[in-house]
Amino acid sequence: MIEDKNQSRTQLEALGEFGLIDHLTQAFKITQESTIKGIGDDAAVLDFADKQLVVTTDLLVEGVHFDLSYMPLKHLGYKAIMVNLSDVFAMNAKASQVTVSIAVSNRFPLEALEALYAGIKTATDLYNVDLIGGDTTSSTSGLLISVTAIGQVSKQDVVYRNGAKPNDLLVVTGDLGGAYMGLQVLEREKAVFKVNPNNQPDLEPYTYIVERQLKPEARKDIPVLLKELGVKPTAMIDISDGLSSEILHICKESGVGCDLYENKIPLDPQVITTCEEFQLDSTTVALNGGEDYELLFTISQEDFPKIKGNPNFTVIGYITEASAGAHLVTRADTKIALKAQGWKSFEK
Amino acid sequence: MIEDKNQSRTQLEALGEFGLIDHLTQAFKITQESTIKGIGDDAAVLDFADKQLVVTTDLLVEGVHFDLSYMPLKHLGYKAIMVNLSDVFAMNAKASQVTVSIAVSNRFPLEALEALYAGIKTATDLYNVDLIGGDTTSSTSGLLISVTAIGQVSKQDVVYRNGAKPNDLLVVTGDLGGAYMGLQVLEREKAVFKVNPNNQPDLEPYTYIVERQLKPEARKDIPVLLKELGVKPTAMIDISDGLSSEILHICKESGVGCDLYENKIPLDPQVITTCEEFQLDSTTVALNGGEDYELLFTISQEDFPKIKGNPNFTVIGYITEASAGAHLVTRADTKIALKAQGWKSFEK
Repeated sequence: MIEDKNQSRTQLEALGEFGLIDHLTQAFKITQESTIKGIGDDAAVLDFADKQLVVTTDLLVEGVHFDLSYMPLKHLGYKAIMVNLSDVFAMNAKASQVTVSIAVSNRFPLEALEALYAGIKTATDLYNVDLIGGDTTSSTSGLLISVTAIGQVSKQDVVYRNGAKPNDLLVVTGDLGGAYMGLQVLEREKAVFKVNPNNQPDLEPYTYIVERQLKPEARKDIPVLLKELGVKPTAMIDISDGLSSEILHICKESGVGCDLYENKIPLDPQVITTCEEFQLDSTTVALNGGEDYELLFTISQEDFPKIKGNPNFTVIGYITEASAGAHLVTRADTKIALKAQGWKSFEK
Repeated sequence: MIEDKNQSRTQLEALGEFGLIDHLTQAFKITQESTIKGIGDDAAVLDFADKQLVVTTDLLVEGVHFDLSYMPLKHLGYKAIMVNLSDVFAMNAKASQVTVSIAVSNRFPLEALEALYAGIKTATDLYNVDLIGGDTTSSTSGLLISVTAIGQVSKQDVVYRNGAKPNDLLVVTGDLGGAYMGLQVLEREKAVFKVNPNNQPDLEPYTYIVERQLKPEARKDIPVLLKELGVKPTAMIDISDGLSSEILHICKESGVGCDLYENKIPLDPQVITTCEEFQLDSTTVALNGGEDYELLFTISQEDFPKIKGNPNFTVIGYITEASAGAHLVTRADTKIALKAQGWKSFEK
């Protein structure tokens, strides 16, 4: 939130389009066996031998998906990759390549794009994926990032949203609501900063949730762990829009209902205390908050012993017949219909 | 250029994000054997068996790459697909899938996006590619389209930019400069319209070049034709930024020089007459105009008899040693150095 007025500024016009792409991508190296040709031709060339591939794409728009007043560009670059890799992992696949396109107004100096690409590089290095292409162009306003991620998976391992069966268990990784509460803290600090720019925010009590918002990690480990445990989920989805929206996607695609137990939803203590501070209901936050990038999946009850006690997984409910509907079973043991109230970019 | 004030307007908020995607994509059907799963999961799933795949992506930004005052949205949708398929064909590959993401401000009604997707559908139907995913979000200003295209090619057929050898022939498909001159005509009519909105433009004498600008066709036929003729180019690139820029890409990537003959550059008569009218040099237009989406390639001289006399191809020069440099041989038989002056989005 503290702007360095002395930072170096190189105008983008100085490089031209090709110079800019070369400059921003020169540090990226190809490491994946499946990448035959990366950046530098009309198209990248990939070879997956006998594997199937998965392809997913997401747009992030300044002023809609991110606010640069508290999102450092390096974190934004990192997060843009995570958002897409998360979709690859939700197919039970291994991520291997990404393309990154940006549209950027001339108000951004080269150094800003370098910071963005430094975050992209950190992500691609850490998650072992190759940057294989993209496009860089000017925009009339603001910054927009479009990422396409490609992954690979053996035909028999791919997991769709549509395989959940009645009596399957509903399982979630990690904990929920953190990213949303981190955003609340950052929004509050931004409002404080506007009133008093000399105020130095103390984010110490919110470290975990702010990091969940600014530097989410996609669950690369989960497809690997499931394989090791000998568990193939019957359905899987990543949690980008909030738990209830994702559960309803699985129910709709699989033609089933579900009972979700409020008292089973995994919450970090920092989410609980921050919810109290903001006078928000933590269940509502977990159900509708979004951006946690955890995975939600269903497994056959036979597989329960394989995941039981594993700290990565929490069983939060079970699948029912479609006719039973999709419900939240509250702590008071009443059933209320699940609704998707996730974040929708066209509704403000 | 004539706006229908009575057109129906449905606000985007009325549908929400998922409703909007469903609505816009419901008419698209999967036809490609390699598409296992299209829209509707975390990621699409593809299977190319023993083929390699090529991946390319492009961003089109309103106010930078297109002007909606003369570009109908249906044409824009069509062109956005062409721009990307052209890159696939430039790898000597067959296009099979696309993803389309759009960021759009609330000033666009649903009917505008329907027109855009009608153009996308016309393109995917005609070029036999599946729409397999994408993202739809709001923007703070204007319209932005991000397309990723995927194609397939046998390992032995893929053609890069870097294989041109001294003495190879430099060959171009179709004719050049039309799209740029079409743009000049449209820009002029827009200026006239601003002064006198009742003036009805007569575009009849410019039909071909205006269509080259508004509805370009990617050269799907060329990889097929080359295969039939038994010709594998040594290098290939599509002409999106202007002939000289593309030739210099091949020279740089292949480590060679070239002699390009001015009197061999294929020009449509309408380009020539319109250049005269606008007092522009037609060679300059062909070299730097861009957006023709023809293919430029190099072949071994041994293959010349196979393409000789084919109306799709024009030999425009030959490859030399790198030390000789890249030159245009003018009609007056003087040599001048080729420079890339193609359109650059960061330079206005």
